[in-house]
Amino acid sequence: MIRTPYLLFLGDAHDQLAAKVAQGINDWRPDNVVGQFRMDGCKADVGAPDMSLQEAYDKGARTLVVGVANRGGVISEAWLGVLAEAMEIGYDIASGLHNLLRDEDILKATSARAGRTLHDVRVPSVAYPIANGKKRNGKRCLAVGTDCSVGKMYTGLAMDTEMQKRGLKSTFRPTGQTGILITGAGVPLDAVVADFMAGAVEWLTPENDDDHWDHIEGQGSLWHVSYSGVTMALIHGGRPDALILAHEPTRTHMRGLPDYDLPSLEALRDQALPLARIANPNCQVAGISVNTKALSDQEAADLCAEIEAKMGIPTVDPYRHGAARLVDALLEL
Amino acid sequence: MIRTPYLLFLGDAHDQLAAKVAQGINDWRPDNVVGQFRMDGCKADVGAPDMSLQEAYDKGARTLVVGVANRGGVISEAWLGVLAEAMEIGYDIASGLHNLLRDEDILKATSARAGRTLHDVRVPSVAYPIANGKKRNGKRCLAVGTDCSVGKMYTGLAMDTEMQKRGLKSTFRPTGQTGILITGAGVPLDAVVADFMAGAVEWLTPENDDDHWDHIEGQGSLWHVSYSGVTMALIHGGRPDALILAHEPTRTHMRGLPDYDLPSLEALRDQALPLARIANPNCQVAGISVNTKALSDQEAADLCAEIEAKMGIPTVDPYRHGAARLVDALLEL
Repeated sequence: MIRTPYLLFLGDAHDQLAAKVAQGINDWRPDNVVGQFRMDGCKADVGAPDMSLQEAYDKGARTLVVGVANRGGVISEAWLGVLAEAMEIGYDIASGLHNLLRDEDILKATSARAGRTLHDVRVPSVAYPIANGKKRNGKRCLAVGTDCSVGKMYTGLAMDTEMQKRGLKSTFRPTGQTGILITGAGVPLDAVVADFMAGAVEWLTPENDDDHWDHIEGQGSLWHVSYSGVTMALIHGGRPDALILAHEPTRTHMRGLPDYDLPSLEALRDQALPLARIANPNCQVAGISVNTKALSDQEAADLCAEIEAKMGIPTVDPYRHGAARLVDALLEL
Repeated sequence: MIRTPYLLFLGDAHDQLAAKVAQGINDWRPDNVVGQFRMDGCKADVGAPDMSLQEAYDKGARTLVVGVANRGGVISEAWLGVLAEAMEIGYDIASGLHNLLRDEDILKATSARAGRTLHDVRVPSVAYPIANGKKRNGKRCLAVGTDCSVGKMYTGLAMDTEMQKRGLKSTFRPTGQTGILITGAGVPLDAVVADFMAGAVEWLTPENDDDHWDHIEGQGSLWHVSYSGVTMALIHGGRPDALILAHEPTRTHMRGLPDYDLPSLEALRDQALPLARIANPNCQVAGISVNTKALSDQEAADLCAEIEAKMGIPTVDPYRHGAARLVDALLEL
């Protein structure tokens, strides 16, 4: 568990996209954010107040979160001094970068001496069990995509936010580094050893109140041959009561796989639902989430209406239109 | 790559079943076996000549293979002296036990001093790539099961043996520790990190001659919720041209999951084939392998005939009836 609230470290981000982790945290958990820390030459701004390390610490920030991606996931020389100074002040450090905080001598030495924690959220820190497949009380929702990176995380976060707003019992359950940094806890599923993937998802979504919903962050796609095993483990470990089909309408092929076409939403439904029902015979496809970022308002509305007419279930872009209709669909199951 | 041939270490096996790894090696690769080494009180015998360490070494054995399972996968105190002595003589040591050779101080020290290799085949020794999904020349066959432990490894080994006997180009590709010890190389798939599972299977089954068949060892089952992600990675990483459906007719529920029923062979076919065709649109279900160990000769023959009439594809127990008809089916695809 990462201590909140955060100071978001944007470093010397070379553009806005490089700070998308910090942006995600500020968009979805503004209450977790005291401010942002930018170095000379930083070209990103996530909209949080600019603060020095000491100022943010005095306002309560307890973890400095590396919310920026460098090329190759490396930890830049220019950052090390700032991160070490932050630990001297009292911060823990959290990062989802491929290169690990703990592998930097100065960070390791400073954290040990000052008694701070380095959170490398790409690395599992728990010995997950092998999945036992047992029924657990409480409800679970999982987004499955026609491809990777089609908005599954945003769908889960938007549905959780909508349920919280209504005073319903709901938890977002992250399975990737950005999600883990947003909420402060989760399972870095793509780094878990094969035998324990489904067990890690069970561990992440334990027994709960009958009227509580977990919104499990999806990963990969059954159609993405590089990562479909991870998707499968989510479908069985999560034993969802509801699936949301997630889609991005402008993709011309599977991400990173030029020879692979995207499936239709019908094909996704017809393949995913029987697999989900192996674990939970009551699972239903509740709705469809379309990432319409590349479309105009009118195009987005038309496309959602067209898909909804064809598929017969609520279809929205939860980021653009809100997740209310998807949540309504869950509650009607 | 483990140096062959082997001396099979049976230790103080408390019964025949405890030596099933050694038995598998001797059954499937007798040419790799110089002899067996048994300690006082050993209750197993795999049928290889009993030999001392020195005698087998003089006859060419170069690796001592721990072919016995202790309770809990531990390396018994009683074994350590023998394993260390073997390294002094010149042997490498190979083991698929859960507890690692390299974690035993005396083995680690002796191997370092004497310049021998400790092969812990449960631990991946390669940095596998992320799968790229590209078409590779050569043919691949994968057994998918209605459950775990229904004879998928034996099916692949039997088909490989039959093809070798006919002078055809064929390789068995192990994905579990017993298979790796049998052939001397492979991928311990259940220990691979999630993101690299499918890539590890691609690595294991590279580009080959057009008329060469890889027989990929299957793992888990799409219906086994603890391990289905591993099965999925095999289906997509292996991009098989042919699937063999593997079944054990006396199971009353999924192995280790008392609340889970086994699927029908029709359900397995109808779920697995569309998933396989995502990676390889030409994939076919070529035949059915039934593990009839618990049945009489007549029952086995009747059951295979009944399944074959219902499913319309060759159905045999490759261990009992030979794999000739399954190989014929591959060649006719």
